[in-house]
Amino acid sequence: MNFTKYKDYYCDSLLKDVMPFWSDHSIDVEFGGYFTSLDRTGKVFDTDKFIWLQCRQVWTFAKFYNVLDNNLQWLEIAQKGARFLKQHGRDEKGNWYFALNREGKPLVQPYNIFSDCFAAMAFSQLYTATGEEDYRIIAKETFNNILSRQDNPRGRYSKDYPGTRPLQSFALPMILSNLVLEMEMVLDEEVVESTIDRAIHAVMEVFYLADYDTILENVTADGSFSHTYDGRLLNPGHVLEAMWFMMDLGVRRHDKELIDKAVQICISTLNRGWDEKYEGIFYFLDVKGHPPQQLEWDQKLWWVHLEALVATLKGFYLTGNEEMLSWFERLNAYTLDHFPDPEYGEWYGYLNRQGEVLLPLKGGKWKGCFHVPRGLYQIYTILEKITSDEK
Amino acid sequence: MNFTKYKDYYCDSLLKDVMPFWSDHSIDVEFGGYFTSLDRTGKVFDTDKFIWLQCRQVWTFAKFYNVLDNNLQWLEIAQKGARFLKQHGRDEKGNWYFALNREGKPLVQPYNIFSDCFAAMAFSQLYTATGEEDYRIIAKETFNNILSRQDNPRGRYSKDYPGTRPLQSFALPMILSNLVLEMEMVLDEEVVESTIDRAIHAVMEVFYLADYDTILENVTADGSFSHTYDGRLLNPGHVLEAMWFMMDLGVRRHDKELIDKAVQICISTLNRGWDEKYEGIFYFLDVKGHPPQQLEWDQKLWWVHLEALVATLKGFYLTGNEEMLSWFERLNAYTLDHFPDPEYGEWYGYLNRQGEVLLPLKGGKWKGCFHVPRGLYQIYTILEKITSDEK
Repeated sequence: MNFTKYKDYYCDSLLKDVMPFWSDHSIDVEFGGYFTSLDRTGKVFDTDKFIWLQCRQVWTFAKFYNVLDNNLQWLEIAQKGARFLKQHGRDEKGNWYFALNREGKPLVQPYNIFSDCFAAMAFSQLYTATGEEDYRIIAKETFNNILSRQDNPRGRYSKDYPGTRPLQSFALPMILSNLVLEMEMVLDEEVVESTIDRAIHAVMEVFYLADYDTILENVTADGSFSHTYDGRLLNPGHVLEAMWFMMDLGVRRHDKELIDKAVQICISTLNRGWDEKYEGIFYFLDVKGHPPQQLEWDQKLWWVHLEALVATLKGFYLTGNEEMLSWFERLNAYTLDHFPDPEYGEWYGYLNRQGEVLLPLKGGKWKGCFHVPRGLYQIYTILEKITSDEK
Repeated sequence: MNFTKYKDYYCDSLLKDVMPFWSDHSIDVEFGGYFTSLDRTGKVFDTDKFIWLQCRQVWTFAKFYNVLDNNLQWLEIAQKGARFLKQHGRDEKGNWYFALNREGKPLVQPYNIFSDCFAAMAFSQLYTATGEEDYRIIAKETFNNILSRQDNPRGRYSKDYPGTRPLQSFALPMILSNLVLEMEMVLDEEVVESTIDRAIHAVMEVFYLADYDTILENVTADGSFSHTYDGRLLNPGHVLEAMWFMMDLGVRRHDKELIDKAVQICISTLNRGWDEKYEGIFYFLDVKGHPPQQLEWDQKLWWVHLEALVATLKGFYLTGNEEMLSWFERLNAYTLDHFPDPEYGEWYGYLNRQGEVLLPLKGGKWKGCFHVPRGLYQIYTILEKITSDEK
């Protein structure tokens, strides 16, 4: 593989295509915050503001201001979003709403703790960029609130009847395993370390299913397999994303065993999640092979393929595992062939199983300025290390 | 079209294929109630019991005992489900849960008022079959409970922030327009008539969008168009189902104008919802042509096509409109070509846009013993009227 060629490609995509797409099309100059429902050409087709995506865009612009280029326009865009969020994003208890209307009035209640996770990520990164105490406090308070809600994240919005089938969900421990590194600058060291300990245990042991050598979305309260729709659910993109979070923790802790196990889980999950007929990675599978509940199970999503690219390249870089390199090459060919839109820029988000565009949008309720730039940045920086090691 | 040939086909499908499939495969002899998660061959792959589907199966077996054949096995199956529901289905306030586990313990809280609607339908039909007072009381109490909850059906489970964007939803008025006829035997005449008045007004005026000559899923509190994802949402199958409910009310009230308007809405909705490229009716559309939020928007669902068959044939029978007959013929060809499974019986539920089987199940969380038998019965009885009128 020509690593230099792809290093340049991913860097150019990020700086000349993706970041300008969002700075050009997503800024709401009238009410603040960002538009994320953008059609193929970048035109706004809906003005609702989803907290996940508002926060993720703040994070993206602040992060790249911090690590890539002290571009003041990026900092300004991040701060513009942060001001909108600070003014409108939380209820009186400090919980983050799920959605606001264009003006910033709450539309959907704070039922979803991931809004809080992305808010904590955004404000930490902006604190690093500016040193503004206010941002630090918001980030820290939000993080503490997440920890206090973590055992019952949906609170009064949960529809589960208490006690009949208590399941643990993978998503929050997984996100915490990344969030804690993103927030190191605002957290006490012992909180960081204990959160990492718990996250590694949850991801690599509690949710790990040895018989299938992969990780499930839900397990019972005591960590065993649940013979139910939720218990059988496999989300390969989630697993692959979590595995590069684990590799980052492995690097931090000089834990080669953790990295090796993450690499092995990546390979077995790709073998299970890859569509042999049309290529690409399925969105959802039932691990026992039954029909999943999710009607969108066979679709090919942008974020799944980006996380898979990051995981395989990182795994190859850290271990030299050639199988990971082959998977990276295979994924790279499929992804670059199908997702980027050479005509209007940025990436399509949703393809059908056959690889055709299912929704011709560049952003919506769930796709915003986050996975594409973060993935491009991760891939570009790993390729840079590989190419500079080669010299 | 050879009406007699299809009359025989639909009748045979119902009596020799579909009803036996459910009596053979769905009965839980150990704990009561029904299994609905059945794979292609009828084998149970999950044992959770969803109240919508438990109630709908009680309704189906009781209904056909009442109107088709005094088959005591059918009555017994209906009563078996009813006993399970009576024992386990409601909370202490009489609200129907959404899901139970196999043994009958509540899994999902009563957040969904349609559980109550299908329970009222089931127990009314079973009261007709048996005259048992107990069934009448459950049906009537449930119906009164629905009316008292109708302005805030999700109650404490609603995630909407109060006041920012109050929308009215089409689903409940639409279901009430059918439920009230299903329940005539247990309701006071004036309740029936006033419910019909309100339902016709809601369906044909409040949710009707004149510019597009179709009916939307959500409108603002004052009945106008909402320029939002929810406001733009069109569910063609829902519209077509509602239109045959309106035709039934038109017949009852000798209201030719209502029937004619329903026919006109069917035709314009089919023109909008039909997939010219691969045939079949889309599941969801954005009425303004923007990308919808629903990733499953382009799929072809069994119930949509059955409701479309019923609506077009009923409209043709009642008005002689030749366009409705052409649509029926077109839908009939597509549906019989794609949904029934000649090898293992019953119908597939979910096809991809191209018409290939997406999930090889015969039942799951949303598909049970309801739309296929109800649709076959409706089509068969209309064809019987057409062929006997021809003689």
